[in-house]
Amino acid sequence: MLKEGELISRIRAAFCGEDPDLVLGIGDDTAVVRGIHGFTLYTKDLLIEDVHFLRRAHPPRLLGKKSLNVNLSDIAAMGGIPRYALLGLGCPQELETNWLEDFLGGFREAAAAASVLLIGGDVARAEKIAVSVTAVGEAERYVTRSGARPGDGLYVSGTPGDSGQGLELLKKGLQPGDDPGADPLLLAHLDPAPRLALGRELGKRAIASAMIDLSDGPAVDLGHICEESGCGAVVESRLLPLSKALRRFQAEAVHMALHGGEDYELLFTVPPDNEKKLDSLRRTFPITRIGRMVKEPGIFLEDDGVRSPLTPAGFSHF
Amino acid sequence: MLKEGELISRIRAAFCGEDPDLVLGIGDDTAVVRGIHGFTLYTKDLLIEDVHFLRRAHPPRLLGKKSLNVNLSDIAAMGGIPRYALLGLGCPQELETNWLEDFLGGFREAAAAASVLLIGGDVARAEKIAVSVTAVGEAERYVTRSGARPGDGLYVSGTPGDSGQGLELLKKGLQPGDDPGADPLLLAHLDPAPRLALGRELGKRAIASAMIDLSDGPAVDLGHICEESGCGAVVESRLLPLSKALRRFQAEAVHMALHGGEDYELLFTVPPDNEKKLDSLRRTFPITRIGRMVKEPGIFLEDDGVRSPLTPAGFSHF
Repeated sequence: MLKEGELISRIRAAFCGEDPDLVLGIGDDTAVVRGIHGFTLYTKDLLIEDVHFLRRAHPPRLLGKKSLNVNLSDIAAMGGIPRYALLGLGCPQELETNWLEDFLGGFREAAAAASVLLIGGDVARAEKIAVSVTAVGEAERYVTRSGARPGDGLYVSGTPGDSGQGLELLKKGLQPGDDPGADPLLLAHLDPAPRLALGRELGKRAIASAMIDLSDGPAVDLGHICEESGCGAVVESRLLPLSKALRRFQAEAVHMALHGGEDYELLFTVPPDNEKKLDSLRRTFPITRIGRMVKEPGIFLEDDGVRSPLTPAGFSHF
Repeated sequence: MLKEGELISRIRAAFCGEDPDLVLGIGDDTAVVRGIHGFTLYTKDLLIEDVHFLRRAHPPRLLGKKSLNVNLSDIAAMGGIPRYALLGLGCPQELETNWLEDFLGGFREAAAAASVLLIGGDVARAEKIAVSVTAVGEAERYVTRSGARPGDGLYVSGTPGDSGQGLELLKKGLQPGDDPGADPLLLAHLDPAPRLALGRELGKRAIASAMIDLSDGPAVDLGHICEESGCGAVVESRLLPLSKALRRFQAEAVHMALHGGEDYELLFTVPPDNEKKLDSLRRTFPITRIGRMVKEPGIFLEDDGVRSPLTPAGFSHF
């Protein structure tokens, strides 16, 4: 079978097309179409049982929340406001009514928290649970992956790696409540929160020059920014914000922070002239400068003054 | 597990909400939101392997076409023009590159035929093939399920039952080409065409008072029009357009026409004053009057002057 990346490239190549209202097609966090409030944003994510989650390890309420929130994270990464969602749900026959009610309750919670309305969808029988959510958002101004320039600062929100480590612990059978010290990691994986307010500020106030949400880990997602922007990046390992919990459970915390996936934090670049505007956001949001954009193509890790190429190490789902 | 209908009712009840731009939420063929060209339409359908199709029986090219076309059919039923699509694709590891290329080729064919652009999506590993398509359309004027009034004529496009019978024959192992007489039935199931041009005329020229696409069979889908419009309907069995192929392969052709699913034809109602406007479409489109809307609630079948309640007999997927 084709690899995911290759398949996406083929789809992207096969479906390029012109349209008077289409501003941005396949290849960014969301598609962008002209809309009544400036631009309309579209994104769609799949969550498949035993690939993206284990039924016994993921409480249905949190899975319901996550299935919407991972889509809202894409809208956050464009600087948009989410408005609507459509939910496709493939349900195994044996699925309990309680499971469904909890899942829908969680989905509703996430929708209410972001003022998102569910406007349609489809349910069908399936052997494994399959969740497909489409989210629709809007923005007067949006941020792509392609606007980074050499000299821009490179920033991340939150503490990447927590979700990847949480997944490791879940695989070992740990559940929330088993060890309070592990809960931030487990919940980073089970119940990630989209950075809507931060994304919005970075977009609306034109602070970020490029932005992406962290779904495959910084090493991979930074690669998308570099590729689309036509420049390179240097990450300084000493600058990486590592949570106390991650450091406790993971000896290779820097590695996990760079390669762990599903953090749904924002990775973004800021031109030097905008650093002051960014300062005003630091009081409200956990933002850390982790490096800078450079002219040479490629992604590099700087550790104690030594620079080495940072190659994606992949991240594992279940 | 909850039945599909009950689950949808629960979702509908749980997610009702107000929004200044939302015109029509869950419960019609598409959601309707205010848009730059009047209204924006949203719909989403799931196709799950072994539930909606068998991999060995459904040529991948035709499955690719169908996965988009069933969504375009919903947009046709609102009187809209489709514009964009998002594709979620769950692929088993062992799926061959050829299968994927054929599937995407078919999807592209259907997209090109309707001038639809693929603007986003997601691919993921899955044990069974899962296809989730979201279609976005537009309309200056849309037709709901709720506008039918007693005295309106009841119409259908094409020859319903062909797809249901085609499914029966596929289950028996028949494939296109095996028996030329069976091909129209098999293709009605494998490769349905959305009635976009007809739906558009009926909507734009305000000819239809209510409309729905036939996915679950006329007995079920007419029930949705009756329920949403608050009236009843009488179908005259002698008026049902039965294809020669259906009559050849099915002794109970009327039953199959009423209860077979997945025809993706349009079922619509026309006020007496609009009959003349409708006449102008008869030259271009295969339209048949099959009954009328009445004041008494319920759906009735009139056969040789004898009226009996028409209760949904369900239709089977694979």
